[in-house]
Amino acid sequence: MTSPLTHFDAQGEAHMVDVSAKAETHRVAVAAGEIRMQPETFALIASGTAKKGDVLGVARIAAIQGAKRCSDLVPLCHPLPITRVKVEFELDEAGSRVLCRAQVETLGRTGVEMEALCAVQVGLLTIYDMCKAADRGMVIDRVRVLEKQGGKSGEWRALESA
Amino acid sequence: MTSPLTHFDAQGEAHMVDVSAKAETHRVAVAAGEIRMQPETFALIASGTAKKGDVLGVARIAAIQGAKRCSDLVPLCHPLPITRVKVEFELDEAGSRVLCRAQVETLGRTGVEMEALCAVQVGLLTIYDMCKAADRGMVIDRVRVLEKQGGKSGEWRALESA
Amino acid sequence: MTSPLTHFDAQGEAHMVDVSAKAETHRVAVAAGEIRMQPETFALIASGTAKKGDVLGVARIAAIQGAKRCSDLVPLCHPLPITRVKVEFELDEAGSRVLCRAQVETLGRTGVEMEALCAVQVGLLTIYDMCKAADRGMVIDRVRVLEKQGGKSGEWRALESA
Amino acid sequence: MTSPLTHFDAQGEAHMVDVSAKAETHRVAVAAGEIRMQPETFALIASGTAKKGDVLGVARIAAIQGAKRCSDLVPLCHPLPITRVKVEFELDEAGSRVLCRAQVETLGRTGVEMEALCAVQVGLLTIYDMCKAADRGMVIDRVRVLEKQGGKSGEWRALESA
Amino acid sequence: MTSPLTHFDAQGEAHMVDVSAKAETHRVAVAAGEIRMQPETFALIASGTAKKGDVLGVARIAAIQGAKRCSDLVPLCHPLPITRVKVEFELDEAGSRVLCRAQVETLGRTGVEMEALCAVQVGLLTIYDMCKAADRGMVIDRVRVLEKQGGKSGEWRALESA
Amino acid sequence: MTSPLTHFDAQGEAHMVDVSAKAETHRVAVAAGEIRMQPETFALIASGTAKKGDVLGVARIAAIQGAKRCSDLVPLCHPLPITRVKVEFELDEAGSRVLCRAQVETLGRTGVEMEALCAVQVGLLTIYDMCKAADRGMVIDRVRVLEKQGGKSGEWRALESA
Repeated sequence: MTSPLTHFDAQGEAHMVDVSAKAETHRVAVAAGEIRMQPETFALIASGTAKKGDVLGVARIAAIQGAKRCSDLVPLCHPLPITRVKVEFELDEAGSRVLCRAQVETLGRTGVEMEALCAVQVGLLTIYDMCKAADRGMVIDRVRVLEKQGGKSGEWRALESA
Repeated sequence: MTSPLTHFDAQGEAHMVDVSAKAETHRVAVAAGEIRMQPETFALIASGTAKKGDVLGVARIAAIQGAKRCSDLVPLCHPLPITRVKVEFELDEAGSRVLCRAQVETLGRTGVEMEALCAVQVGLLTIYDMCKAADRGMVIDRVRVLEKQGGKSGEWRALESA
Repeated sequence: MTSPLTHFDAQGEAHMVDVSAKAETHRVAVAAGEIRMQPETFALIASGTAKKGDVLGVARIAAIQGAKRCSDLVPLCHPLPITRVKVEFELDEAGSRVLCRAQVETLGRTGVEMEALCAVQVGLLTIYDMCKAADRGMVIDRVRVLEKQGGKSGEWRALESA
Repeated sequence: MTSPLTHFDAQGEAHMVDVSAKAETHRVAVAAGEIRMQPETFALIASGTAKKGDVLGVARIAAIQGAKRCSDLVPLCHPLPITRVKVEFELDEAGSRVLCRAQVETLGRTGVEMEALCAVQVGLLTIYDMCKAADRGMVIDRVRVLEKQGGKSGEWRALESA
Repeated sequence: MTSPLTHFDAQGEAHMVDVSAKAETHRVAVAAGEIRMQPETFALIASGTAKKGDVLGVARIAAIQGAKRCSDLVPLCHPLPITRVKVEFELDEAGSRVLCRAQVETLGRTGVEMEALCAVQVGLLTIYDMCKAADRGMVIDRVRVLEKQGGKSGEWRALESA
Repeated sequence: MTSPLTHFDAQGEAHMVDVSAKAETHRVAVAAGEIRMQPETFALIASGTAKKGDVLGVARIAAIQGAKRCSDLVPLCHPLPITRVKVEFELDEAGSRVLCRAQVETLGRTGVEMEALCAVQVGLLTIYDMCKAADRGMVIDRVRVLEKQGGKSGEWRALESA
């Protein structure tokens, strides 16, 4: 019986999975996550986007670049010619948190959910960096894949009540 | 009044903060986070570390390298000559989750909490990558700084009940 | 009406433009630029290429590698599998300047003019670096795209009298 | 007599110059450059910074990151722990051009003028990238070092009438 | 007559060879090499893989990532979307050496033997790094291509008596 | 008893060794290696350095840049502000091989032998790349540290009869 951990061979040794025989198809992945903070910190970000000190503008650029660095960071990821990255932030004042959602696309032989997760992680890290002088206790939470299309496994959507 | 968002100047423009006049001191930061998964996925990781298919061994290496890539990923971070990276994983079977804790040290002019967060993020991403064929719904949670020492602001610890 | 600034969406937020539906075609771009210097500095470079201290040989390698780093440097650039890079330098003794011209090709879904500009910029920067001990006042000038082929917009050539 | 091209040894072979015996001092460098464009393109950038589609905000982040990538790009540059990067853009409507000015600082054994030039080059390239769909004929011009402080050679300023 | 050194043009100038007109085919390359050491060092590695201190597990990850960094390291290499990397180590107790073998695959316009060599080099370097406190005199030896498939030149195998 | 494998802790887990308490001293390392080839290939390289097609000039630049990428490639290496890299090639016609020797220096808390080995490896790989169209059977051999100065362990030299 083969292991469900496809990144290891029969000897338990890590490898970059062979995708040579897979078809090059259009693949889409959507990931999301959030950063929770003090209401005062939230207010700084919210006012910044309207006026000056555009935290989310900087974080969006970092997130897009993060998607491109994915195969550098995650050892067994395949390098992929990404064809689209879209990163959105949403301000949830009631929850005193910023939500991040990243969509990545490619025409390739393997999926782009890791690239989408990387974008979200780097975007949220950048918000932490820019606000840490005001609030060291911020928490990055609920980073996950929401949706995946393309490839042999077809479409997949997370079950969530969020 | 100056803004608490030190990464923006009076015109609201982003910059890499001037740390030229800061003293080079010994700085330590500890960050943590976790990835939650199905019990079956947890069992795969847990058995792997004992036998073969060492998910956590791979994730640890990725996390250490992630700490070194921090200033590449986070736009306004200063590059720093890191002097130590220690990454630990803990298996919480009851919670069906893997906890990650990273400690980073330097002798530098600014702190290393971003490097510690980067290590945690990349370590948890790598676990996601290696187990995603078995469980796409894993969630990365509670990534935060636990502790920080050195520099003008001295010692700081997160208030937590975890 | 959509903005001519295609890197921003309707909300004014930056994104990496979706090229998933574009055809993979053969694309060529040519860029050029120059560095002006003191005649004594020019003489050092000119004699070096003939004899020893090959400034342009080093700059050519840097330029070729610069083309490959383009999507790392320019935030919204797509990563592309470059299929050719050719970099030429021309010595203009009368003008006391070195001209650089880079041609980049790919089979991809978007053009390579940014890669060609990157090659020129890094090539000229490297000349500056190697000669700066002799002449700090050198100026990099007239970096521009000369020509572009392939893709929906077809062929384009700069109008110039140079 | 030694060559003024310090990056080559007596045999004409390139090397990374030995700075081991130099003192670690506070070093500052300022570089500048500009991108010239059609008045319509200029208007797009100018309105964007006020409203939405913040070309200069994206270019500023790219420029800051470009400073950090300098020793990766320029073969004989020393890696340096940069302590400050400040990037400013100025809109010159009469000249239909955007001016870029970058200041970089470190406490190190060699200067940071290459880092400042890198920041300017990458910042201007990013403006080209974001506006190229509207105006392919933009030209990057007059990239040069304005000022340098620290180290054995002390202070230096470009002679200019600009 | 053209030179057999295809990386130089008729003027002797280096360039990244034009592969635009080559067919995208399935390409495979296998490279190998070894590191020789003191028997005591060998014993540390051998016991580590069985018990704890998994030198080869770390080296395998480094080797896989090394394959992905090839076009960054080797100036005239084309960037390629690698579709597989497999790295194996063999313990030769009699010879007191560790053998490394890397297989890399792609669907591309040029071969992957450089990527396979990079994987071997970085894998062996990492073993050196991890054991150097115990044995500084280790030697990396016999790094070479064993086999190559795909592309115009078809299949090639090294003649060896090893 | 602590293990001689300092990159693993008492639990056998890899970490980046803590060098925070080490003194910043002047450190030097010298590494060497060689590439063996057919006499016809050797003749191409030898004539190229005199005339055109400067294989060794390109390889020298790659080697210098390789030293700077060491901590990116070798997972547990510390990032270091390198203060010097010198790379020399020697043509051994009788042995039909090219010898490479790299010297790296820093003022840091840990040694630079990995950086010197990296420089040699990347330099020799680049020779392989540039000559592989003529000779696929070249072999990289005898890559090792020759000498090391600075730090607690003081001076060390390889015993060799070469």
